[in-house]
Amino acid sequence: MMTDYPPFGAGLWHFASYVDRYATDGYAAPVSTLEQIARAGEVGDLTYVDVPYPFTDGVTIEQVKAALTQNGLQAVGVTPEIYMRRFRKGAFTNPDAAVRAQAGAVLNEAADVVRALDARYLKVWPGQDGWDYPFQVDHHQQWTLAVSGMRDLALANPDIKIVIEYKPREPRQKMFWDSAAKTALGIKAMGVENVGVLLDFGHALFGGESPAAAAQLLIDHDLLWAMDVNDNLRGWDDDMVVGTVHPVEVFEFFYTLKVNNWQGVWQLDQFPFREDTVEAARLSIRFLKGIHRALEELDIAALREAQSNEDALGAQRLVQDVLFSCLRSES
Amino acid sequence: MMTDYPPFGAGLWHFASYVDRYATDGYAAPVSTLEQIARAGEVGDLTYVDVPYPFTDGVTIEQVKAALTQNGLQAVGVTPEIYMRRFRKGAFTNPDAAVRAQAGAVLNEAADVVRALDARYLKVWPGQDGWDYPFQVDHHQQWTLAVSGMRDLALANPDIKIVIEYKPREPRQKMFWDSAAKTALGIKAMGVENVGVLLDFGHALFGGESPAAAAQLLIDHDLLWAMDVNDNLRGWDDDMVVGTVHPVEVFEFFYTLKVNNWQGVWQLDQFPFREDTVEAARLSIRFLKGIHRALEELDIAALREAQSNEDALGAQRLVQDVLFSCLRSES
Amino acid sequence: MMTDYPPFGAGLWHFASYVDRYATDGYAAPVSTLEQIARAGEVGDLTYVDVPYPFTDGVTIEQVKAALTQNGLQAVGVTPEIYMRRFRKGAFTNPDAAVRAQAGAVLNEAADVVRALDARYLKVWPGQDGWDYPFQVDHHQQWTLAVSGMRDLALANPDIKIVIEYKPREPRQKMFWDSAAKTALGIKAMGVENVGVLLDFGHALFGGESPAAAAQLLIDHDLLWAMDVNDNLRGWDDDMVVGTVHPVEVFEFFYTLKVNNWQGVWQLDQFPFREDTVEAARLSIRFLKGIHRALEELDIAALREAQSNEDALGAQRLVQDVLFSCLRSES
Amino acid sequence: MMTDYPPFGAGLWHFASYVDRYATDGYAAPVSTLEQIARAGEVGDLTYVDVPYPFTDGVTIEQVKAALTQNGLQAVGVTPEIYMRRFRKGAFTNPDAAVRAQAGAVLNEAADVVRALDARYLKVWPGQDGWDYPFQVDHHQQWTLAVSGMRDLALANPDIKIVIEYKPREPRQKMFWDSAAKTALGIKAMGVENVGVLLDFGHALFGGESPAAAAQLLIDHDLLWAMDVNDNLRGWDDDMVVGTVHPVEVFEFFYTLKVNNWQGVWQLDQFPFREDTVEAARLSIRFLKGIHRALEELDIAALREAQSNEDALGAQRLVQDVLFSCLRSES
Repeated sequence: MMTDYPPFGAGLWHFASYVDRYATDGYAAPVSTLEQIARAGEVGDLTYVDVPYPFTDGVTIEQVKAALTQNGLQAVGVTPEIYMRRFRKGAFTNPDAAVRAQAGAVLNEAADVVRALDARYLKVWPGQDGWDYPFQVDHHQQWTLAVSGMRDLALANPDIKIVIEYKPREPRQKMFWDSAAKTALGIKAMGVENVGVLLDFGHALFGGESPAAAAQLLIDHDLLWAMDVNDNLRGWDDDMVVGTVHPVEVFEFFYTLKVNNWQGVWQLDQFPFREDTVEAARLSIRFLKGIHRALEELDIAALREAQSNEDALGAQRLVQDVLFSCLRSES
Repeated sequence: MMTDYPPFGAGLWHFASYVDRYATDGYAAPVSTLEQIARAGEVGDLTYVDVPYPFTDGVTIEQVKAALTQNGLQAVGVTPEIYMRRFRKGAFTNPDAAVRAQAGAVLNEAADVVRALDARYLKVWPGQDGWDYPFQVDHHQQWTLAVSGMRDLALANPDIKIVIEYKPREPRQKMFWDSAAKTALGIKAMGVENVGVLLDFGHALFGGESPAAAAQLLIDHDLLWAMDVNDNLRGWDDDMVVGTVHPVEVFEFFYTLKVNNWQGVWQLDQFPFREDTVEAARLSIRFLKGIHRALEELDIAALREAQSNEDALGAQRLVQDVLFSCLRSES
Repeated sequence: MMTDYPPFGAGLWHFASYVDRYATDGYAAPVSTLEQIARAGEVGDLTYVDVPYPFTDGVTIEQVKAALTQNGLQAVGVTPEIYMRRFRKGAFTNPDAAVRAQAGAVLNEAADVVRALDARYLKVWPGQDGWDYPFQVDHHQQWTLAVSGMRDLALANPDIKIVIEYKPREPRQKMFWDSAAKTALGIKAMGVENVGVLLDFGHALFGGESPAAAAQLLIDHDLLWAMDVNDNLRGWDDDMVVGTVHPVEVFEFFYTLKVNNWQGVWQLDQFPFREDTVEAARLSIRFLKGIHRALEELDIAALREAQSNEDALGAQRLVQDVLFSCLRSES
Repeated sequence: MMTDYPPFGAGLWHFASYVDRYATDGYAAPVSTLEQIARAGEVGDLTYVDVPYPFTDGVTIEQVKAALTQNGLQAVGVTPEIYMRRFRKGAFTNPDAAVRAQAGAVLNEAADVVRALDARYLKVWPGQDGWDYPFQVDHHQQWTLAVSGMRDLALANPDIKIVIEYKPREPRQKMFWDSAAKTALGIKAMGVENVGVLLDFGHALFGGESPAAAAQLLIDHDLLWAMDVNDNLRGWDDDMVVGTVHPVEVFEFFYTLKVNNWQGVWQLDQFPFREDTVEAARLSIRFLKGIHRALEELDIAALREAQSNEDALGAQRLVQDVLFSCLRSES
């Protein structure tokens, strides 16, 4: 069987080290942007990376470009770090206008990096834009700031595509951009053409969405411009290796992309805190290739027929036939 | 202190008996529509009820009208029971066009009951419109059916207001109308003027929304046409007595209504499976009156000032001052 | 490959029809105990059934015995229905001593049915023994009643094995017997030898346990006497078809049983509300057979080596090799 | 009304600054152990602190003792930081025996600090002792290590009380010591007299326990030796300010302590990431004092009578009477 796999990608942070509120000395020694790129190159099947900005200390954009080229990688997106200390009460929605201006500056610098790296999009994840306590914010004002700030960014960078990555919560107890539907609603209110959505499989899953249904909703609004995958236990953004917990819903997610003829990068957003980061990517891609082969074998006409009757058992039988045999050539 | 309380209401089912998949003989003896109305009248503080349709066996609309009058009650809404056996795979989205037509017939009959009772709205809760298993449905097709069916209903009844009650799940594992944002998105796609939203506090809470934020979002889209309250443990639609678990968020919800000058019925949607149903309503209204008094005492200007700085502690201090003294005159 | 499958079983309710608080007319026409047995026989791979008691109206124990024989089935357990209306505030822990006595009578009658059917155990699931509201019960008193009542039952029936099926919640907001550890703690306090545990995979999963870890804990206390499987979305006891959502954790659960040399019936506890009940069982058993074959192919020595280093990726690679090829001969 | 408040305490980390995986530069500038003690002293109502060990760089035990005295504080416990990088795969259950020995060394040093500070207990929270992926660990082996390691620590320090703080998850996806019942089961297996439990209200809540029921279970086993409070949204260990979300269950928790005549420190375990840490403690204690007053006013005999009938509404009415008037003298 000839299989033409899609391009695979990963956030560069997949190859970094991590801290949390307990292991404040980090789960491993720090990894520079250039070392992260080198590790991404080691994986062997990666074509694209999403590049956080600013780079780690002292790294220049020329070095990043050279490292990408040397490792056979391209930038799919650039992610401005608008969730550090100074933005702890929000970037777009910070109560202090001066901090909002600082966020704007970082975002526009990141847009320049998109241009310099010839990336596909600026990825905006406003992780500190939300609230923690009942009564803490005026939801009308804050949502207005969230939407108008994004609109301003889009108008200031008409040559650049912007994707919003929504997430229900963390690091705030609640985030403003928290679901596919709310993000679509906000984008429609902007009246611009260069803002879309990056759907993170795990964010949808732990937010109680069906990732497949969320993808379909965004596709139906022409807003699904990027995606990434991982896995979790449905209660938190665990950013585990894709397929290790919820392979069936991963499969349904990619099925939805396929039947809509979605073209794009199959991207990883994982945090292998205690694992070898290169090996984590390899295991992920091995699984995604299996998913891709299973999709080629799936009897889609029969599945559609089952779906037209809400025949859950018939649909599952067809799905299990191919999903639970997709690694047979590997074993 | 003179307090002018809002009108209180309740779904008539609050005064019914219930079954579930275990106690199939019911938690109490059956209660007819007329008996439910009589019990609602006993509460003493209720002005409005939401009336399920069809009525229990043999009850006529004339009897219902008479019973309402006799008990000093008015119908705020009518709720068609489009979630019985024949609709188990959906009403608007049933795979069988004949069943969809049956649902349409029930809905239009219920619209006639709205007219006959001079109620404010037809409440549509399509509880069986959703799915249970991964791969069971084609989300594009189903969402299209869900939206277009509601639009047809609205166009066929231009003199009637329709409110959609969204809910994340139950009795299906997932429902199509599952959040404030998704419902707003669907209604905007209809291009009609007579469809709005009924926000159920508990549905928002167990769906991971902030009920206050969801209310504000709907108000900002002119779609919050009705609401009801209850409580739960955030994991399921427990339909417990309001305020028994999450009084702070109930208070924030009503605060949001007040500062937006929302006028409407403060309505109960509770299922007191093992409790005296009249007493459950009385305890609820006692608490809601306390909430109402606390809102009158709340220093809203100071709260707004705290919110303008995302000052969670300052906001909470103001809130606690009034919430935790709101029943002092009762004790 | 020669495969000697384990015996398969199912609760007879798998083949019944269901009601819930919305579809009060039931998801299908009622199915008598004898018809349920006939449907179980149709599945083709079932050897054991768990029999609810009382039987549906008019059915005698002789009829049940004959029907079981005729369909090639044996009773693995008997489940007394101590969760009907009269027990709505509890069976063992009902505040009314007269109701507790009624529950005792039903339980002892069910023990006689265990003897008559030569079943392996009396399965006790006290679904109404719990609470709904904060402050509703005195936890010391209620837990004492829960434990002492079970102890009395055990002492009154020393010739019978009793298994407690724990569950976090539903139909009560919280149940007393809610986890493997708490159930083990309660059983140890009884000081009897004939009480063990039935672990329901879905109950463990939606209660936040790892079903595999819960199984190991019970095995280490010699208390895992029975089990059943199904699937859910981790937030509720959805009783879906096993393997349709969480195949990896199902596999880990059966792996744990295998390495502990656990011998017993692989049993289904599913509620196919809207599905063909016979077909639901067949799809389940097809998957369980795949799991069984995968376990035979799994390189357990290599897996143990990976586990001895907490090597999550190495372990997953070995697991995926066999799990995602376990249906290859079927397709 | 004369009110004799209980002693209040807090973990010293309440007054620290925090990092997480996003704001890696920390939510505020670092705060040394001595500065933390000074801030604790500023609160005005604190008598006890729980002291993490090791202290921040360069701080000596003499300095800590002096600072405590100067600020009118005593150490209630000492918390060894056995969750830093080297323990990322576990302390007691680390696969590497050498790392387990390092953990043992830290724990024994911390026991010496308990002696030096004359604290009441060594608090052990083995946050990295758990697992992340299905199949990652052998649950039998790991639980054996978890229990035997704690037993060894207890035997090596017979003059010291040890309390285990259980938690369902974070930073591991699952922790071994994850519930009251499992912790009690493990402690009973140790056969020692100097190991008990610290119950964290928020851990119980987000683990799906009723904190009040968990407290009662531990009291009934003579194991509730310490506790701390906070609040969360039931899905994560948010460590929010106590009473801001779930005041009713906080009240039930303290009610349970009172009726069992539990004597001990009312302690805070909160992480005010974006808030003033001193003010967060003050708001917390203001609320706890309100709770304490409400408990004095509560008609306990009437409540017990309601509970003896599982009269949820009657119980709630009594509770609301005092809870929602407990701050009236403050406003």
